[in-house]
Amino acid sequence: MKIDQVLHMNEGMGEASYARNSLLQQKAISIAKPMIEEAITTLYCNTLPRNLAIADLGCSSGPNTFFVVTQIIKFVETLSQQLNRPSPEYQVLLNDLPANDFNSIFKSIPTFKHELYNEIQANKIGPCFISGVPGSFYGRLFPTRSLHFVHSSYSLHWLSQVPEGIEKSNKGNIYITRTSPKKVLKAYYEQFERDISGFLRSRAEELVEGGCMILTILGRRSEDPSSKESAVHIYELFANALNHLVFKGLIQADQLHSFNIPNYIPSSSELKLQILKQGSFKINRTEVSSVHWTHCGTDNQHKSGAYNVAKCMRAVLESLVLQHFGETIIDEAFRVFQELLADTMSKEKTEFFNITLYLTKQSPSCVCFN
Amino acid sequence: MKIDQVLHMNEGMGEASYARNSLLQQKAISIAKPMIEEAITTLYCNTLPRNLAIADLGCSSGPNTFFVVTQIIKFVETLSQQLNRPSPEYQVLLNDLPANDFNSIFKSIPTFKHELYNEIQANKIGPCFISGVPGSFYGRLFPTRSLHFVHSSYSLHWLSQVPEGIEKSNKGNIYITRTSPKKVLKAYYEQFERDISGFLRSRAEELVEGGCMILTILGRRSEDPSSKESAVHIYELFANALNHLVFKGLIQADQLHSFNIPNYIPSSSELKLQILKQGSFKINRTEVSSVHWTHCGTDNQHKSGAYNVAKCMRAVLESLVLQHFGETIIDEAFRVFQELLADTMSKEKTEFFNITLYLTKQSPSCVCFN
Repeated sequence: MKIDQVLHMNEGMGEASYARNSLLQQKAISIAKPMIEEAITTLYCNTLPRNLAIADLGCSSGPNTFFVVTQIIKFVETLSQQLNRPSPEYQVLLNDLPANDFNSIFKSIPTFKHELYNEIQANKIGPCFISGVPGSFYGRLFPTRSLHFVHSSYSLHWLSQVPEGIEKSNKGNIYITRTSPKKVLKAYYEQFERDISGFLRSRAEELVEGGCMILTILGRRSEDPSSKESAVHIYELFANALNHLVFKGLIQADQLHSFNIPNYIPSSSELKLQILKQGSFKINRTEVSSVHWTHCGTDNQHKSGAYNVAKCMRAVLESLVLQHFGETIIDEAFRVFQELLADTMSKEKTEFFNITLYLTKQSPSCVCFN
Repeated sequence: MKIDQVLHMNEGMGEASYARNSLLQQKAISIAKPMIEEAITTLYCNTLPRNLAIADLGCSSGPNTFFVVTQIIKFVETLSQQLNRPSPEYQVLLNDLPANDFNSIFKSIPTFKHELYNEIQANKIGPCFISGVPGSFYGRLFPTRSLHFVHSSYSLHWLSQVPEGIEKSNKGNIYITRTSPKKVLKAYYEQFERDISGFLRSRAEELVEGGCMILTILGRRSEDPSSKESAVHIYELFANALNHLVFKGLIQADQLHSFNIPNYIPSSSELKLQILKQGSFKINRTEVSSVHWTHCGTDNQHKSGAYNVAKCMRAVLESLVLQHFGETIIDEAFRVFQELLADTMSKEKTEFFNITLYLTKQSPSCVCFN
């Protein structure tokens, strides 16, 4: 593969946007679809809301931004017709960090509405009010008891920060691996605990009684956080690429030692434990599904699987790498990474695991799980 | 004055933003302040809301975006302390057209919150949830009965479009003047009627019972819409500048004939009549105030009054002029305009008139006005 294929691969699309707009994300939403429909049916029939407030947390910007919202509105319209009820008003609350390109989302609203009204008879659909809500979903974003339905896909594995105190401990690694000291595992897990409990507490305050969430999280199957699978494996390969650059003298060993990715790739039982500990939500359903690494690509994907994965991971990691190591090593790092990916993908079954959860807000006295 | 002073005067700030961030806007808000305080006191004492939803319509982006919101929150905090009530949650809804720079607003939220918490004891203030709501305020923007307080300043004189059917009728003019045919006056007034009634109807649906609005509108004192005063006079001078360019052969006469500004500068009684006709709002108070043209400037204003006014009006009109006449004539048009402004300002008392209204949503059966 030529260098310029790597060099220009992110043109025309923001970093996180690329990942959010990959086939991976579309696949995740299609896996979650039956659960979304189950959740919406229960919510709608129990509360018959005149104003249905739907929040998409970590909405990003790009062709997929309105994908799940469109599915939900279409489904509610069908439900309303079946139940012979008037359409509700839709309040669509799009959240992401303040650096997200909300301007571009807002400019695409007419296209979204045009497509929506084309699919549904325009004269029947309830009005749809769209707003952008910038901020971290690990804290409060919305007024108390103002939401009915929360959706979040491929966002909750991002921690609010790199766990503190591990700068010099995780030598040669960039995430949890088998060689990471226990201190590193503990710091990552505690950061995950703090963040996820903040997320659950905030949403519990914001959701109405009976409100619900569908969350799709990049996870792992094994209970061992260093298990060589899913995104954990990908990060190990990227660490190998960076170690290669240390070997070639392109980056300092110390620079690599202090680089750690602010992600936590949880197992399904780790997630469930946190939900039970926090106590505000009933777990109605959990599903673990696998998606091949090559689904990282978009519709216009390159024939090479490794190219697609490298491109997607570059979109996800580039700003972190750039900030920490500077611009000069970027292309070489992702070139080596792609070689390592190609080698691994030719020998092993390489999959991501998605954990999809359907949660309903419950009163504090009742703690249930499936 | 040198051409390059005009050429570069808009650097670093968006077009409408400049006007919104002028001293004019700050002055308008300080004039409205006693009315805002009266409205908030009545609203707060009557409804004691746990979540106070405040919408700023036509919020623009820049240093003044959070100015009025800061005033309101500070005042509510004082009220809460006086009444020994807990602070409410604040829901701040910032609206403007989708082309507004919401990204820049969202990036300035930490500064806004930092300054707000510095002024008020941070541990006492209620949480503040900010969102951006793109769209035209002449239609619905928010769910039914979801707002408590609406503020809008220097935005409602913008019509949703240039009145239809006047392209060839208003020869040599760009707004209503004494030489405009009756057809033009009628078309402008009817567009104003349609827009303002759409605004009032939408807000009546969105406000809770007892909800209120403070609106500051660029207006005129005289009942004659072509009266040479306020912004009407400014537009007449700009038309003179464009006619000068026709005379010099820089633009075609036909081009000028088809250029009309989508504004309506109403009188206080025209506004009141529309409010009474629409019927959803009680007019508690109306105030007409004058502000000298030179208040168009910002803090870093140039010594010349005409320069400041030309700069401000260029910020307001540039995109319209650019779209209609192309880029080549822009500098010359505003150079001539500045000369005409300087001449007028040296001879006449040149003022804008602001109309500030304090309206409360009322039940359909009761129509009252002062």
